[in-house]
Amino acid sequence: MSKPQRPKARLPRGFRDRGAAEIAAERRMLDIIRGVYESYGFAPLETPAFEYTDALGKFLPDVDRPNEGVFSLRDDDEQWLSLRYDLTAPLARYVAENFQDLPKPFRRYQVGPVWRNEKPGPGRFREFTQFDADTVGSNSPAADAELLMMVCDALEAVGLKRGEYVVKINNRKLLDGMLEAAQIDISKRGLVLRAIDKLDRLGLKGVSELLGSERKDASGDITKGADLLPHQISQVMSFVNASAQSVDWHRVEDWLKIAFQGDIGPTGKLGINEVLRIAEIISGNGFQTDRIRFDASIIRGLDYYTGPVFEAQLAFPVKNENGEEIVFGSVAGGGRYDDLVARFTGQQVPATGISIGVSRLLTALSSRGLTGDIKPLIVVLTMEDAASSFAVARELREAGFRAEAYVGTRKFGDQLKYADKRGAALAIIEGGDERANSQITIKNLVAGSELAKSIESRAEYLGARQAQETVARGGLVATVRRMLGG
Amino acid sequence: MSKPQRPKARLPRGFRDRGAAEIAAERRMLDIIRGVYESYGFAPLETPAFEYTDALGKFLPDVDRPNEGVFSLRDDDEQWLSLRYDLTAPLARYVAENFQDLPKPFRRYQVGPVWRNEKPGPGRFREFTQFDADTVGSNSPAADAELLMMVCDALEAVGLKRGEYVVKINNRKLLDGMLEAAQIDISKRGLVLRAIDKLDRLGLKGVSELLGSERKDASGDITKGADLLPHQISQVMSFVNASAQSVDWHRVEDWLKIAFQGDIGPTGKLGINEVLRIAEIISGNGFQTDRIRFDASIIRGLDYYTGPVFEAQLAFPVKNENGEEIVFGSVAGGGRYDDLVARFTGQQVPATGISIGVSRLLTALSSRGLTGDIKPLIVVLTMEDAASSFAVARELREAGFRAEAYVGTRKFGDQLKYADKRGAALAIIEGGDERANSQITIKNLVAGSELAKSIESRAEYLGARQAQETVARGGLVATVRRMLGG
Repeated sequence: MSKPQRPKARLPRGFRDRGAAEIAAERRMLDIIRGVYESYGFAPLETPAFEYTDALGKFLPDVDRPNEGVFSLRDDDEQWLSLRYDLTAPLARYVAENFQDLPKPFRRYQVGPVWRNEKPGPGRFREFTQFDADTVGSNSPAADAELLMMVCDALEAVGLKRGEYVVKINNRKLLDGMLEAAQIDISKRGLVLRAIDKLDRLGLKGVSELLGSERKDASGDITKGADLLPHQISQVMSFVNASAQSVDWHRVEDWLKIAFQGDIGPTGKLGINEVLRIAEIISGNGFQTDRIRFDASIIRGLDYYTGPVFEAQLAFPVKNENGEEIVFGSVAGGGRYDDLVARFTGQQVPATGISIGVSRLLTALSSRGLTGDIKPLIVVLTMEDAASSFAVARELREAGFRAEAYVGTRKFGDQLKYADKRGAALAIIEGGDERANSQITIKNLVAGSELAKSIESRAEYLGARQAQETVARGGLVATVRRMLGG
Repeated sequence: MSKPQRPKARLPRGFRDRGAAEIAAERRMLDIIRGVYESYGFAPLETPAFEYTDALGKFLPDVDRPNEGVFSLRDDDEQWLSLRYDLTAPLARYVAENFQDLPKPFRRYQVGPVWRNEKPGPGRFREFTQFDADTVGSNSPAADAELLMMVCDALEAVGLKRGEYVVKINNRKLLDGMLEAAQIDISKRGLVLRAIDKLDRLGLKGVSELLGSERKDASGDITKGADLLPHQISQVMSFVNASAQSVDWHRVEDWLKIAFQGDIGPTGKLGINEVLRIAEIISGNGFQTDRIRFDASIIRGLDYYTGPVFEAQLAFPVKNENGEEIVFGSVAGGGRYDDLVARFTGQQVPATGISIGVSRLLTALSSRGLTGDIKPLIVVLTMEDAASSFAVARELREAGFRAEAYVGTRKFGDQLKYADKRGAALAIIEGGDERANSQITIKNLVAGSELAKSIESRAEYLGARQAQETVARGGLVATVRRMLGG
């Protein structure tokens, strides 16, 4: 009756374990991005996993357990702590806390996990990694332009070719100026932005229906629209349409004026000016519209953007692990936000940033085979003498190979199966006979297993046996090098 | 009255932010250790930050909020989640969950933060990084020997010299065999082990007092002792004494017999056998007692060790940031534990592991200056044309330098101050005059600021001015290379 209750070994819901191949591919990718960002003079910062809940801003603890969207708990001294849900809120806290001591502009990058207490779904986890770069303390369009060029350089450094990605920019002031010019009531701003944000999925017709009275989808479901007047719809659509054409940066001013149908108010003018100053810098550095492009349909969800908004998108179809083509959104996004630090200090500090979605970009690179090489593994079987198999493995490591001695207690056949399961390229065997003759055997597991699959005749069987070589002990390293190289 | 309440920007208690220098030094160190572990064939694994609380084992939720020692919270579905407090408990969960699919022995390393919900103190944080390597599914001493050799290789790879560290091993079975031989009641095991564990601080006399009736410290405080009989104390002290002498591995058998005073029971014999088999492997691979040494005073706190226990210690004094010499304990520790997975499956699975305390090792390396080099930074000042300063920075990056264009909006003097604050080595200036003459100015900030400190005469002032050079625009990269190299 008192049999102990054993816990079931299981991953928490919405979390996952990650293995060697994914970790290696991610490390390669992050190291490259880090290298690019550091070459631009961005310095790394690491903030802790926890922040005080009141410092996170978005989710103030106005209920007993402030657990909506974030993971929160109460500390010994009754203060609420939350795990960071992004890397921007901790940056705001850090800048506000250390403002006097920081060089201004303050440019930092940070990469690390963030946590969201949300309902998990397929491909949707409650812990994931972000890679952010932000410039705090400059309202110059140069700061935005730098981020745009830097993210292009990073995407090409990890292996994407020119034309396989595009960084799209828009400006919140253009959007607001367009609403202003079309005399669209501010109460409809959200509805209009949400409609534009759906251009990718619904196309021009769908968006214009959502700007009108209603939209009926294929299943007959009806979505209520923004109820704009016909001339307002026309003006918004003209603006959105502008994004469909790609024009060189030196023609972007004319293009924006056409998009506005000549009717530009003060807010729109500010937006155009910001776009033009960014255009001047990036085009002066050779970044043409094949890499960075204006796109009036880029909205970005967060309310706090105040000027330029950016989004990096892939220009090729991506397949998931099951070989199915998947809809692939942005791999990076960001923009200018000028009031994040003000929450703490009351002082407006301009800031602009871009965040790479690490697992999304990694999926895209994997589908392109851009994951880097893992050194082949060599397993030295352990016959009677572990000291000796360790010495062989050590000799191979010192020659630059990845080599392990088998440290289990099973017999020969199981050791070979182990080596196979580990995906080893070679197995090294130094049995009693070999040692007596100062020899050693190197078995090519890849060739061996491929041959074994197709063996139908005795001749083939003999071929399979040739997937191993017995050589003089002193020839070990040279033979391994030849077999791995071949 | 309704003035908004602003949150105070502050780090949560017991957590810290980390800046560029520490991050770079840690990354260098972790990359090297990772390289060594991977060359041994250990594969990386990443488990999530959270585990179900019941899977953590040590801290079962028998109270309403299972918050003792770990950070815990209740999920939507009322299950308790905890942040991992080490990397061993998640490994046990992972192995139990995936046992059938894993190669056996399963050898993985994992590096990442762990969280402890404890009272923070000086140098004692609630979030810190561990670097673990474990071998699961082998009871062979070869598995223990491999970890010992691997951690030596790792410590030397990060820059420690032979003799600057020592890995000490002991065996729980020896300790138990010694208690058995001296007929010490099992109820006194904890007291005896704790007394031995204090050898470092109290010396032989202090330990033997703690084994007797009581110990009075310098302040007159009295600690109750284990109340052993005189011959029992003598037997324990003989065993502990053995650790004071360093003997070569081929003499370790005699040495252990002397330590036991010839009186070895069955448990002690098992322990001696394990030590000897490890000794055979490591000495056969050239690891003598200058690197790995038997030490009977090594206890390791955790109860779950069942055989060999290890501890890597530094053999040189370490200074903290304030230049004070600090007591430096182990930088790595571990041992064999055979019943961690059994909690889930009921099945005994042998395992052995070693964990590096990342921030402790990093402090030690920093005190030795082993932190790697950071590339010098070049700041390109932005005069009237940001596109042009970006182009200069880009040219320098393409030549392999770390170079940023100033993206703020301040004037010349403030830009120079910014470059100084950033610790830049050079500032590049391309003003109107320079551009008209196709020239560019490179200012050596390091030499300039050192000269500025000591300027007392006009001659010196002219010397300080020579800390900058104006050269033909085409000579930028060559001049920068010469000035950084010189």
